[in-house]
Amino acid sequence: MDPFPSPLAAASAGYFRQLQDNIIKAFEDTDKNHKFIKTPWQKGSQDLLQGGGTIALLHGEVFEKMGVNFSEVSGTFPEAFRKEIPGAEASGGRFWASGVSLVCHPRNPHVPAVHFNVRRIETSRTWFGGGTDLTPCLPVEEDTAHFHQTLEDACKSYQPDAYPRFKKWCDEYFFLPHRNEARGVGGIFFDYLEDRPEETFAFVQAVGQAFLAAYLPLAEKHKDQPFTPGEKHTQLVKRGRYAEFNLLYDRGTRFGLQSGGNVDAILMSLPPEARWP
Amino acid sequence: MDPFPSPLAAASAGYFRQLQDNIIKAFEDTDKNHKFIKTPWQKGSQDLLQGGGTIALLHGEVFEKMGVNFSEVSGTFPEAFRKEIPGAEASGGRFWASGVSLVCHPRNPHVPAVHFNVRRIETSRTWFGGGTDLTPCLPVEEDTAHFHQTLEDACKSYQPDAYPRFKKWCDEYFFLPHRNEARGVGGIFFDYLEDRPEETFAFVQAVGQAFLAAYLPLAEKHKDQPFTPGEKHTQLVKRGRYAEFNLLYDRGTRFGLQSGGNVDAILMSLPPEARWP
Repeated sequence: MDPFPSPLAAASAGYFRQLQDNIIKAFEDTDKNHKFIKTPWQKGSQDLLQGGGTIALLHGEVFEKMGVNFSEVSGTFPEAFRKEIPGAEASGGRFWASGVSLVCHPRNPHVPAVHFNVRRIETSRTWFGGGTDLTPCLPVEEDTAHFHQTLEDACKSYQPDAYPRFKKWCDEYFFLPHRNEARGVGGIFFDYLEDRPEETFAFVQAVGQAFLAAYLPLAEKHKDQPFTPGEKHTQLVKRGRYAEFNLLYDRGTRFGLQSGGNVDAILMSLPPEARWP
Repeated sequence: MDPFPSPLAAASAGYFRQLQDNIIKAFEDTDKNHKFIKTPWQKGSQDLLQGGGTIALLHGEVFEKMGVNFSEVSGTFPEAFRKEIPGAEASGGRFWASGVSLVCHPRNPHVPAVHFNVRRIETSRTWFGGGTDLTPCLPVEEDTAHFHQTLEDACKSYQPDAYPRFKKWCDEYFFLPHRNEARGVGGIFFDYLEDRPEETFAFVQAVGQAFLAAYLPLAEKHKDQPFTPGEKHTQLVKRGRYAEFNLLYDRGTRFGLQSGGNVDAILMSLPPEARWP
C-alpha cells in the first residue's frame, strides 16, 4: 500500500508554508507601514480534525482587511461527506489536506478585491486544486487584461488548454445565480488535478508566483487614486455581494463550517464592512 | 377530491394582505415622518411560480431598513425539492403558499432588530407556520421578558403547551452552530400545524396581533436613547451575524433563491450595513 500521506504531501505543505511568508512579505512591501499579525492554531486530539495552521491578518492602509491562511490538517471525514470527496469512501474517510487561502479587501474602491487559493488533498486519491479571481468594484479593462495575461503565461508551460479550461471553470464557479451576475472579472479555478503530480506541483508553484505578479501592480497603481463617496458606496454594495457568494455558495466556507474547521480562519473571507441598500 | 387550494387558503391570504397593511400603519405611527414604499410584483406564466405579492420597504428615522412582504403564489415544485415538503410528492409537486414576512433593522443600537413571519402552505396536505424572534445587540432583561410574556399570552388559548414548545423550537432554529451562539433572545417558531385548522388560523391571527404588542413598545422606549460609537459598532457586528444566519442557514432564504422566488423580496432581510471586524 502507498504511504499516507504521500511524499508529495510533505513537500507541498513545506511549499505552502513558505508561500504564505512570501505573500506576507510582498503585501507588506506595498502596505509599507503595517504588518500582518500571525496567529498559529492547533486542533487537539479530541477534535474532528488534527493538525493546525497559521492565520495571518492585516488591517492596513492599502489593504483594509486581508487574511492569508496556511493550514495542514488530517482526520476522518464524517460518513455523510465521504461521497462528496473523491476517494474518501475507499479511504474509510481518512484524509490529509494542506493549502494557502487568501482574501484581500482593499480600502480604496479603485483597488480590486482578490482571492487566491492553492491546496493539496489526499484520500485514497490525491490531487491539487486552487485558483485566483479578481473582484473590482470599478473595473478597468487594462487591469483585467493584465491579470488574465499573467495567469495565461503561468498556465502555458503546464498544458496548452489549461488557461481556457481553468478560466471557464472560474467563470462558472464564481457566479451568483440568484443575481444572475458574476462575482468579478474572473481568473482561473482548477480542482482534482491528479495526473502528473510532479508537473502539477510545479504548476501550482507557478500560480503562486503569477498571483503576486498579476495582482500587486494593480494595487500599486490605484492605491493613492482619489475616490468619491459614491465610489465608496459602490464598493460596500459590491462587498455585500461578496458576502452573499461566500455564505450561500462557496464550497470551502460551507464545508469548513460543517466539518468543524477554524471559524475565524474560514470567515476571514468576509468583508470588513458591507451594505445592502 | 378536496378543492385546491382549500377555502381556508383564500381566507388566509385575505388576512395576510390585511395584516401587512396593519403592520405598515403601526410602524409608521412609531416612525412618524417616514412612509413605506409599496412595490407590487407579479410572476408571469413563463416563470416557475405564478402569483405575486407586495414588497413594502421603509428607510426611516427609527427603522433604518425594514421590509414587510406579502405574497400569494402557486406552482409546481421541481422534483428534487418535493421530498423536503410534506405532501408535495403526493400532489405531483403542486403547491399554494401565502404569508407575511417582516425583518426590521432599527438605527439606534438600543432598539432590537426583529423578525416576524406567518404563512400557510398547501400541497396534498395543508398547514400553518410562523413565528417571531427578537435580536437585541444590547439586551435588556425586562424587554426580553415583555417580548416573551406577550407571546406566551397569545399561545395560551391555543394549546396549554404551545408556548414552551414553540419557544424551544425558536431557540433551536435561530442558532448559529459555527459560532455556538443564539441569533438573539428568542421568541416563538412553529411549523406544520395541520390539525384543527380553524383554531390554528385564529392562533396565527393572535400571533399577528401579539407581535405588534410585543415589539413596538420596545422601539418606542429606546428610539431616542443616546448611544456611543462603540454601541453602534456592536450593532454592526451583530448585524454581520444576522447576515451569516440568513445566508448560511435560513430555510426560507435558501429555498426562495433556489426556487426562483423574488430576489429583492427574499434578501430584504439582510441588514443595511454590517461589519466583520
